[in-house]
Amino acid sequence: MSLLISGSIGIDNIKTPTASEDGLLGGSAAYAALAAGLFVKPVHLVGIVGADFPKAHLDMLTGKGIELGSVERSAGESFTWSGEYHADMNTRDTLKVGINVLEHWQPKLSAEAAGVKFAMLGNMSPDNQLQTLEQCKAVEFVAADTMDLWINIANDRLHDVMKKLDLLVINDGEAKQFTGTSNLIEAGRRLQQKGPKYVVVKRGEHGSFLFGNGPEEFFACSAYPLSSVFDPTGAGDSFLGGMIGWLASQSKSKPTFEELKVAVAHGSVVASFTCEAFSTQRLERVDGADVKKRLEELKAYTAFAA
Amino acid sequence: MSLLISGSIGIDNIKTPTASEDGLLGGSAAYAALAAGLFVKPVHLVGIVGADFPKAHLDMLTGKGIELGSVERSAGESFTWSGEYHADMNTRDTLKVGINVLEHWQPKLSAEAAGVKFAMLGNMSPDNQLQTLEQCKAVEFVAADTMDLWINIANDRLHDVMKKLDLLVINDGEAKQFTGTSNLIEAGRRLQQKGPKYVVVKRGEHGSFLFGNGPEEFFACSAYPLSSVFDPTGAGDSFLGGMIGWLASQSKSKPTFEELKVAVAHGSVVASFTCEAFSTQRLERVDGADVKKRLEELKAYTAFAA
Repeated sequence: MSLLISGSIGIDNIKTPTASEDGLLGGSAAYAALAAGLFVKPVHLVGIVGADFPKAHLDMLTGKGIELGSVERSAGESFTWSGEYHADMNTRDTLKVGINVLEHWQPKLSAEAAGVKFAMLGNMSPDNQLQTLEQCKAVEFVAADTMDLWINIANDRLHDVMKKLDLLVINDGEAKQFTGTSNLIEAGRRLQQKGPKYVVVKRGEHGSFLFGNGPEEFFACSAYPLSSVFDPTGAGDSFLGGMIGWLASQSKSKPTFEELKVAVAHGSVVASFTCEAFSTQRLERVDGADVKKRLEELKAYTAFAA
Repeated sequence: MSLLISGSIGIDNIKTPTASEDGLLGGSAAYAALAAGLFVKPVHLVGIVGADFPKAHLDMLTGKGIELGSVERSAGESFTWSGEYHADMNTRDTLKVGINVLEHWQPKLSAEAAGVKFAMLGNMSPDNQLQTLEQCKAVEFVAADTMDLWINIANDRLHDVMKKLDLLVINDGEAKQFTGTSNLIEAGRRLQQKGPKYVVVKRGEHGSFLFGNGPEEFFACSAYPLSSVFDPTGAGDSFLGGMIGWLASQSKSKPTFEELKVAVAHGSVVASFTCEAFSTQRLERVDGADVKKRLEELKAYTAFAA
């Protein structure tokens, strides 16, 4: 079924304890679109890039079945992020952010993008999330991510977004911040009260929690175990991209809770690939057999016979 | 099958953001013995208490099928710990520790305790762990816990303990500290290289990882979800007590990896009860049906159909 993914597309410069690389493809929508493209095509990407944006990145996306008809080409400079990971790989410093072309961007959807049934509003300003959604004429399932910045500076608009969501995906620290509780189970339930029918709280190396209807609809998904993490940038975006891509591939616009669980497991597996190289470099080489193998391993790693 | 649990038995004074209580039953072996007693009887408790130790605590343990023949009664003051939890319930300050009778204790096992097949060496000094083990004449499965204090001040002796273990259970922060890596998968494998055939890394609210033989023997167990945690003291001790109690109940001294997985799930469920009241107060009211219900819920919360 048809899918759009809206969000940032940028140029990342990343340093880890063992390596560094500049000029990498980055941005919430870029990661998510590649992840979703593993399961469904086409993926309509909605975003903006500047005149300095490497043509090679755009060509790679096109080659992976990502439709760029709703990606605006601006004369300005591209969104860019520079960051450095600490030795534990769980914390990082942002060295530099250039909002650039994102500052005055207003998403403009192609006719095809405006007609999708599934929409993912990747991490970007709540205004841009709402502007994307307003142009969707036939959407039946809407998922979104967000971050601490928007909880702090655009809380009211973020609450407007929440009311329109079928699924919110958010990381654990931000879930606690947004709801004012340190208990993640309670945080998930409080987030549902803000609007989304389903909530996923991402817990990094520990996996994720999925909250559905009432206490019985709960799913604790472990992360796919990695004995080394090369670069976790974009893992969360790939997770949601993998989830919504798999859901869109099932040809049902109102997934059941059981389908949401399987989508979460797919998201976990896809995120694990992202952590194994800079940027989308590992994700670009993944195929359906790779995903299936890790999914079966994840199932074996988490099942018990009692 | 027969089981002993050696470790500290103490008096706790605990303050949480919502309540406080003094004179509580505490200590690694006390929690673990009650947890194990849910699955197997008798449990031979090995420890020491002072003249000030409340008779009511000892009577309660006896009433639960815990054998106190290897619990030394000393004229000194009992081991005691006073602590205060922070608002997030994941961190705490130790306000006061009285080592007291534990300082010069040398465990002395009754003939019955010395004949057990299963031994749990709860968190205590590596010397006390080794002294307990030396008296076991017929032991076939040995599990132990430890803490940062012993990693810091008794590292060599702790390595001696490691060489004698079938199973080490340790929390995530201490696993990282002991192995010098921030990756928990890598930390688990490095701990196995120190001796234990099996390693469990406890991850608090996130659950635990079980490591067996090679990359295929891996189990990620989620914690039983609690929307509020009243007092997490003793959760880790109850976890290991629940594990070893269930293993001992299976009448096989060399459990398979699949049985270890089920034991971890039982440990998770038992630990969840401990978090719901001060001390062992909730654990004392749990029965087999309560455990079975949560075990089935945990299974449903973690299974997916893909």
